[in-house]
Amino acid sequence: METIKQIELTDKRLGDGKRPLICTPLVGKTQEVILSETEKILAKQPDLLEWRVDFFEGISDTYAVIDLAKSIKQMAGDTPLIFTRRSFKEGGEPISLSESEVVSLYSAICESRNADIIDYELINTKEDINHLRNVSKEHGIKMIMSYHNFDCTPEVGTLNKKLIEAERMQADIAKIAVMPNHLEDVLTLLRVTLDAKQKLKIPVITMSMGAYGSLTRMFGGAFGSAVTFAVGENSSAPGQVPIEDMKTVLAILQRAIDEK
Amino acid sequence: METIKQIELTDKRLGDGKRPLICTPLVGKTQEVILSETEKILAKQPDLLEWRVDFFEGISDTYAVIDLAKSIKQMAGDTPLIFTRRSFKEGGEPISLSESEVVSLYSAICESRNADIIDYELINTKEDINHLRNVSKEHGIKMIMSYHNFDCTPEVGTLNKKLIEAERMQADIAKIAVMPNHLEDVLTLLRVTLDAKQKLKIPVITMSMGAYGSLTRMFGGAFGSAVTFAVGENSSAPGQVPIEDMKTVLAILQRAIDEK
Repeated sequence: METIKQIELTDKRLGDGKRPLICTPLVGKTQEVILSETEKILAKQPDLLEWRVDFFEGISDTYAVIDLAKSIKQMAGDTPLIFTRRSFKEGGEPISLSESEVVSLYSAICESRNADIIDYELINTKEDINHLRNVSKEHGIKMIMSYHNFDCTPEVGTLNKKLIEAERMQADIAKIAVMPNHLEDVLTLLRVTLDAKQKLKIPVITMSMGAYGSLTRMFGGAFGSAVTFAVGENSSAPGQVPIEDMKTVLAILQRAIDEK
Repeated sequence: METIKQIELTDKRLGDGKRPLICTPLVGKTQEVILSETEKILAKQPDLLEWRVDFFEGISDTYAVIDLAKSIKQMAGDTPLIFTRRSFKEGGEPISLSESEVVSLYSAICESRNADIIDYELINTKEDINHLRNVSKEHGIKMIMSYHNFDCTPEVGTLNKKLIEAERMQADIAKIAVMPNHLEDVLTLLRVTLDAKQKLKIPVITMSMGAYGSLTRMFGGAFGSAVTFAVGENSSAPGQVPIEDMKTVLAILQRAIDEK
C-alpha cells in the first residue's frame, strides 16, 4: 500500500498515512452560530477543523476573531484547527478588509497560537506570502499555500507548477482545488496528485469540485491527497459530501485496499 | 449527469443508466454448492448473476451444465444470468474440455436459452467467436466479448483497440479487466473507459483488478462502465468488494453526483 505524506504539526504527525484526514469547515456568520456549529461538528469526530473566517461577520474586529479562535480551539481539544480567509478572487466571501489588514489578522492569529495551520493563497503577493511564512514559522504554526479555480481545471503542467511553487515558497502543505468541466478534468486532477508524490517532499491536498469532483474527494486519498473536506453542518465548496458518508466510503476503500 | 450506455436484453433494458449494474459471480464446484450460493446471493439482490462454469466440476457433462443453468435461471427469476467459461489463459480455472467442446457447450446453452448473456474472450479464434455470435443471435442471447490481463495494464491505445475490436466483431457488450502495477494504470483504465463513451456505440464493462483496482470497481461507473463485479459469497477475481459495500458506495456516489 502506497502511503500518503503526513501532515506534521510542531508536536505531532497527523493520521496514519493510509487514509486522508477528514476536515470539516466552519462557515457560520456569527459567534453563536460558529460555536454551535463547532460543537455539532466535533460530535462527528473530524480529523481537522477549518474555520473559514471570511464567513464571519466580525472579521474586521481582530480581538473578536482571536477570541473566537481561542474558543473554537478550546472546544476542539486535540483536533487541529486550520484558520483560513479564503480570498474572494478564489471563491471566498466578500470581506471589508484590505489585503494588508488580512495579513495583519493572520499574523495576530499566529502570535496568539489559536490555530495550528493557516491557509493563504499563492495568488497573493510574494511579500505577503513570505511575511506570513516567517511569522507562522516563528510561532510554530504550519502553513498551507493554496490555489483555487472555480471555473475550470488548468492542464497538468500548470497545476504541477502551482504545487511546486508552494514548495519553493516553503509551504508545509500545498493545496489545489479546481473545477472540472468534464470527466477528463477529474483524471487531470488525479494525475497531478500522483505526480506530486514523486515531485514534492511536502504533503498535498487536492480536489476536483462540483458533482464529478466529489469522486476525487472520496478516492483522492489513494492518489496521495492528505486531506479531504467533508460537510459537518454546512459545506464550504461545491461537491463536498457529508462527513458520515465520507467516513463510510473511506472505511470501505481502506478495507478493499488492505485485504488484497 | 452523464449516463452509462445501458445493456439491452431481447425484452428489456437493464438498470437506469445512472449507476453501474452489480454482478455477483457463482463460483461453486458442485451443483449443491452452486445452488446454495445462488440462493444466498439472490437474497442480496444483485442486478446480474454470472455463472463461472469453469469452476464447475461437471463442466464436461453438457446435460448437467444445461440442467444446472436451468435451475439457476429459475431461481434467479428476473435477475439476468451471464454464462461464462473464463479461459485458463485469461485467468479462469483449468478445465478438461477442448476449445471446440467449449464452443459446443456455449452453443447448447444458447439453444436451451438458460442464460441471458454469454461471455467469450477475444483471444479465441475469429471462427469460434463468429460462430458463437451467430448462434447466440439466433436464440436471442446477448454476447460479451472480453479481454483479461492478470499481469499488467496495456497502454491506452492497445486497450482502446480491444474494445473497438469487440464492437467490430458485433459484440453486444465489450469487456476489459486488467491488472494495475501502479496507480498510473488505474488512470489508464479510467481513461480508456471514458474514451469508449465517445468511440463506441455498445456498452462497456471495464475494471482494474487487485487492491488499487478496487477503486475502479467502485467509481468506474461514473466513467461509463456498465457493470461492476462484487462478491456475493466468494470472489471470482482479485479486488472485488462485498456486494453490501458496493451498494453502500454506489448509493453515496449517486447522492453526491445528483445533489449538485
